[in-house]
Amino acid sequence: MADLKKRIDCAMKRKKCDLVIKNVSVFNVFTGKTEACDIAVADGAVVGLGSGYEGARVYDGQGSVAIPGLMDAHIHVESSTLSPEAFAQIVCAHGATAIVADPHEIVNVCGVQGAEYMKESFHRLSVNGTSPLDVYLQLPSCVPATPFETSGAVIGGRETERELARDIFFGLGEVMSYPSVLGAEEDMLRKLQAADELGKVADGHAPGLSGDGLNAYLCGGMRTDHENLTPEECREKVARGMYVQVRCGSSTNNLADVAKACDGFNFRRFITCTDDKNARDLSQRGHLDDLLRRLVAAGVPSERAVVMATLNVAECYRLKGKGAIAPGYCADIALVNDLKDFRVKATFKSGELTAENGRALFEGKRYLPDSVLGTVHVKDLSAKDFAIPCKSGKLRALGVSPQSTIVTHEEIVSVGVKNGFADLTGTGLCKLAVVERHFASGRIGLGVVKGYGFKGGAIGISVAHDAHNLVVLGDSDEAMARVVALLKKTGGGMALVSAEGEETFPFDIAGLMSSAPLEEVVKGAGDITVHAQQMGVTEGIESFMTLVFLSLAVIPNLRLTDHGLVDVNRFEIVPLEVN
Amino acid sequence: MADLKKRIDCAMKRKKCDLVIKNVSVFNVFTGKTEACDIAVADGAVVGLGSGYEGARVYDGQGSVAIPGLMDAHIHVESSTLSPEAFAQIVCAHGATAIVADPHEIVNVCGVQGAEYMKESFHRLSVNGTSPLDVYLQLPSCVPATPFETSGAVIGGRETERELARDIFFGLGEVMSYPSVLGAEEDMLRKLQAADELGKVADGHAPGLSGDGLNAYLCGGMRTDHENLTPEECREKVARGMYVQVRCGSSTNNLADVAKACDGFNFRRFITCTDDKNARDLSQRGHLDDLLRRLVAAGVPSERAVVMATLNVAECYRLKGKGAIAPGYCADIALVNDLKDFRVKATFKSGELTAENGRALFEGKRYLPDSVLGTVHVKDLSAKDFAIPCKSGKLRALGVSPQSTIVTHEEIVSVGVKNGFADLTGTGLCKLAVVERHFASGRIGLGVVKGYGFKGGAIGISVAHDAHNLVVLGDSDEAMARVVALLKKTGGGMALVSAEGEETFPFDIAGLMSSAPLEEVVKGAGDITVHAQQMGVTEGIESFMTLVFLSLAVIPNLRLTDHGLVDVNRFEIVPLEVN
Repeated sequence: MADLKKRIDCAMKRKKCDLVIKNVSVFNVFTGKTEACDIAVADGAVVGLGSGYEGARVYDGQGSVAIPGLMDAHIHVESSTLSPEAFAQIVCAHGATAIVADPHEIVNVCGVQGAEYMKESFHRLSVNGTSPLDVYLQLPSCVPATPFETSGAVIGGRETERELARDIFFGLGEVMSYPSVLGAEEDMLRKLQAADELGKVADGHAPGLSGDGLNAYLCGGMRTDHENLTPEECREKVARGMYVQVRCGSSTNNLADVAKACDGFNFRRFITCTDDKNARDLSQRGHLDDLLRRLVAAGVPSERAVVMATLNVAECYRLKGKGAIAPGYCADIALVNDLKDFRVKATFKSGELTAENGRALFEGKRYLPDSVLGTVHVKDLSAKDFAIPCKSGKLRALGVSPQSTIVTHEEIVSVGVKNGFADLTGTGLCKLAVVERHFASGRIGLGVVKGYGFKGGAIGISVAHDAHNLVVLGDSDEAMARVVALLKKTGGGMALVSAEGEETFPFDIAGLMSSAPLEEVVKGAGDITVHAQQMGVTEGIESFMTLVFLSLAVIPNLRLTDHGLVDVNRFEIVPLEVN
Repeated sequence: MADLKKRIDCAMKRKKCDLVIKNVSVFNVFTGKTEACDIAVADGAVVGLGSGYEGARVYDGQGSVAIPGLMDAHIHVESSTLSPEAFAQIVCAHGATAIVADPHEIVNVCGVQGAEYMKESFHRLSVNGTSPLDVYLQLPSCVPATPFETSGAVIGGRETERELARDIFFGLGEVMSYPSVLGAEEDMLRKLQAADELGKVADGHAPGLSGDGLNAYLCGGMRTDHENLTPEECREKVARGMYVQVRCGSSTNNLADVAKACDGFNFRRFITCTDDKNARDLSQRGHLDDLLRRLVAAGVPSERAVVMATLNVAECYRLKGKGAIAPGYCADIALVNDLKDFRVKATFKSGELTAENGRALFEGKRYLPDSVLGTVHVKDLSAKDFAIPCKSGKLRALGVSPQSTIVTHEEIVSVGVKNGFADLTGTGLCKLAVVERHFASGRIGLGVVKGYGFKGGAIGISVAHDAHNLVVLGDSDEAMARVVALLKKTGGGMALVSAEGEETFPFDIAGLMSSAPLEEVVKGAGDITVHAQQMGVTEGIESFMTLVFLSLAVIPNLRLTDHGLVDVNRFEIVPLEVN
C-alpha cells in the first residue's frame, strides 16, 4: 500500500527522503528531453525531480543518465536455461526492472504448477516486500502447441477459463495457433473470450498475417505481436491496432527491419522484447541494453528507443506507475553511461539498488520444489528402439544448412537397407529421435537429418520446443540409447556420448533450466557444446541449439515429434519412408 | 459480452456483417494517415477495414472522413443546464461517443443520489443494451469545495472510501483543493489513498502549480489537469507525468496557449475536454468538433488534434477498445466533412447510427425522480432580511469589469448610512445576497458589487458554484426578496423582477438543469438574459453568468457565500464593513 502522506511530505521537503540520486541527467519519456537534476525517492516512488532534497541515503550517479527501468514485453525465461533467480540477477544487472513472462516451456512440461513455481521463485527474491524484478506472468495459450506431440500437460478452454481468473496470471500468453483463431475453433474461442471478459491482455504471434486474416485475428483480442518479418508487415499491424514488439533474441535477427517501420508518429505502438535469450548472450551481450544499442545503431533516435523499452510497454500492458521517472511513479531506474551505448552502471527497483557495475546485489535464493524436479520419465530404451524400418531405401529427411538452421527443408534421400531397416552408413545423414519424456510411454518419433554433419556417437537435449520431449541425434543407435539413459539420470539437460566417453550438463529444473549460477551454466553448457561441435558438426550450425527447434511443429517445413514427421505446411503427419 | 465468434466470422467474410460503411476515408490514429476503405461492423465492433464486405445494412458516407467517436475527458454536464438526455442528444449530434463526467454540481446539491440520477438518466437512453454515449462517472472529490459555504451534501474521506468502491464510479473527480493535498490533510489523503488502492483515476485541478508543489500534488496520484494557464505550465505538467487536458469551454479561452506546448513528441499526453459548456454554445458552436476546429486553427496538425480527442483519452483513462477505428475496437465513429472544419455528418455508437445531419436519432426519455426535484428549500424572506447593517459608511465591495468577469477585485467603497443600515442610493453599486437553499436555514451572506451596472429591480439564479445556493443581485431589497420567492416556487432556475413584472426560467432538476428540450432552454434562458441585460448591466458583462461565479470561493480575490465575504487569497471570512 502506497504511503501517500510520506511521499507528499518528502516532495514538499518537510521530511527526509529515503534516497536521493545526485549527479545525473534524467531522461524524460514524456518530452524526449534530458535534464540535469536530482531524483528524490521515498516509499519506493519518485517524489521529486529538482534540487535541495535531503536523503537518508545519497547515491552519486557520477554523471550518468537516468532512464526508467527497462521492461521486456515478452520473454520465455526458460530459454535462458537459467533458474528464475539467476535470470533475475543477470537481467537486473543489465537495467531491467520488469518482464512480461510467458512460462510456455515449463507449463508444457509441468502444467500450471510450472507457472506457480516461476511466480514463487521470483517472489522469493523480494526483500521487505520489494522484488528486484516485476514479473507479469502470462498463462500460456498453446499447451500443447500442436496436436502432433505429447506435452506434459494440456490446458484447454475450460482450464483457461478457470486459471486465467486467478491473480497470478496477468494475461494470456502468445496465441500461436492463429489458424484456430481464424477458424473460430471452439476451444480457442473459450480462451480468447475468457481473456476478453476478464479484461486481461492477450499476446499475439502471427508471422506474416495480413488483410482479412489479420483483422480476424485482432477480433480475437490479441494486442501485441513479436513475429514480424518485414517493415510492411509491421506497418500494417500497427495500423490495425497492434503493438509491434521489437525483438532481439538469441535466434532472431530482423530488428533492423522492424525498426524501419517505426516513425515519429507511430513509435508509441512499438515495444521491446527478447522472447528467447540464452545464458551466454545475456552474459556477454546483455539484455534490453543490447537491444537499445542495436535499435540506435539501426537509426532509431535514442529518445524513441528508450520510450519503446519503458513508457510504451507500461501503456501497452496498462501498468500503473511504471515506465517513467516522474513524481508518483515507481522508482524503477537504470543509470547508463549515455543514450548510445547504454552501458548500465546501476539499477534501482522501487528505490532499492539492485545491481551495480554488472553485478546483482541480491542473493539468488535457491527454491527447488518437487513439482519441477525429476520430470524426465522415459522407458528404458536400447539400440533397437532407434532402428528405422525401411524397404524402399528412400526417406523423407529434414534438411538444415548454416543459412537456415531454424527453417528446415524437406528432402528425399536414399539410404541403404539392411534386414528391413535403414542403414545410414556412408550417407552423411544423421539419425534423429524424439522420445516422449513426460509419461514414459515409450513413444518415439524417428527421422533423418541432412546437412548437420555429425559423427562418432550421439547428443541429446531435453529442451525441445514446445513439448520438450528428448531430442537425440547421432550416427549410432547404441550411443543414442545411452544419451537417453543419461538424460533420464540427470533429470534432463544436455548429454553427449562419444568414443571418449560420456558428458552431461544437467537442466534439473523441469529438464529446461539449471539451478546452477550463471557462470557455471555458461561454462558448462559452453563446454559440452564445443565438444559436440568438434564431432564434425557443419560449420555455422549450432549443435544443440539446432536440435532444440527440430521438433517445433509450427515452423516450416518438416519437423519431427514423438508422433512422427510433421509436414508443417500441410499441418499433418507424413510417413518417413517414401515409396 | 463480446461475441468473438461472430466478429471473427464476419472479419473472414464467412458471415454477413451488421453494417458496412462505404464511400469514406478512414483516419488512422496509430499512423496519422487516412486511407480510402470500407468499415465492416459486427457485434458492435469494427471487424475489418477493406473491401468486399456484405452488410445487413450499408451506409453511404458520401465521401466523408471517418474518425473515432470524440471523447470528452472532463465535463460537468450540469453546466449545460440541460437534462442528461438533452445533453446526450446535442453532443452525439456533434460526434461525441464518450464523456468522463464529473457530476460535481448536482452532488453538491443532492449528494450521491445526484450522481445516481445522472448515471440512470444516461443509462435509460440505451436501446438493446447500447448506449449512444459512454459515460464514465467520477465521484466528486470536493463536496463542499470550501469550508466557507453550505452545500446540500458533504462527502468526506470515509464516504469517499465507501462510494468510490462502487462500480458506478469510474474515478475520483477533479481534486481542486490542492492546498489540502500539499498539506497532506487527513481527510483528503483518505480520498486519494482510496483512489490509489482501487486503481481508479483521479483527475486534477491545479492552476499555476509548479515545482515542489506540483511534484507533491502528483504524489497524491492526480493524472490529469485542465487548469493550465501558460505553455510553460503545460510543458512542466507533461514533463512531470500529467495528461494536460486542452479545454474549450464556454468561459475559458486559452486553448491556443495550451496548444503551443504540444509538439510531435509529447502530443500523446494531451487530451481534449470542455469542462463547462452551456446550452447555447453547444447548440451554436458545437462540442468537441468546435474544439478540434480551434486546435487546428491554432496550428496543431489535424492528425495530432484528432488523436488528442480519441486515442489519447482512451489511453489516459485506460478505456479498452476505445479511441480507434480498428478491428476489435468498438464501432464508435464520427463522419466529418474534412479534418479542418470537422462538420459532423453522422455519428455511430457501437455500430448504431445515433445522429445524422446535426440531429440525434434517439429519443430523450424523460426521467425525473424525486431525488432531484424540489431541491430549493428557503425560509420566507422579506425586504428587511437584505438590509446591510452599517455604521462606518465603508464597505468591502466585489469589483467586476468587462475585462475580468470571473476574477473579482476587492475595493473599499463609500455608501450612505440610514437608520444604521447601508444606503446604496446614488452609488451605482448593487446589493448581492447569497441565500442558503438546501436546508432552509435562513442563512444569508450579504455584500455589494461594483461595476455591474444594474438598476430597477433584482435578478437571481440557483446555479452558483460550487454550493449552488441562491445568488441574488439588485438595487431593491423588496425585489430581491421577491426573486427568492420566485426561485423557491419554480424549484430553482433564473428569475427577474422589474417594474414590468416578474419573469422566470426554471431549472427544475436540482435547481441546475432544465428538463425542457434544448431549443426551449436556449430560447428561455436567452430571453430572460436579454431582459436582464437591458436593466443597465455594463456592456461586456453577462448578467446571469457573472452571478454564477460570484460565490465560487476558490477563484481570486473576493467572493460571497452564505457564510459571508471570503478573501480567497487569505482563505478566510472577512467582514463586509470596514472601519
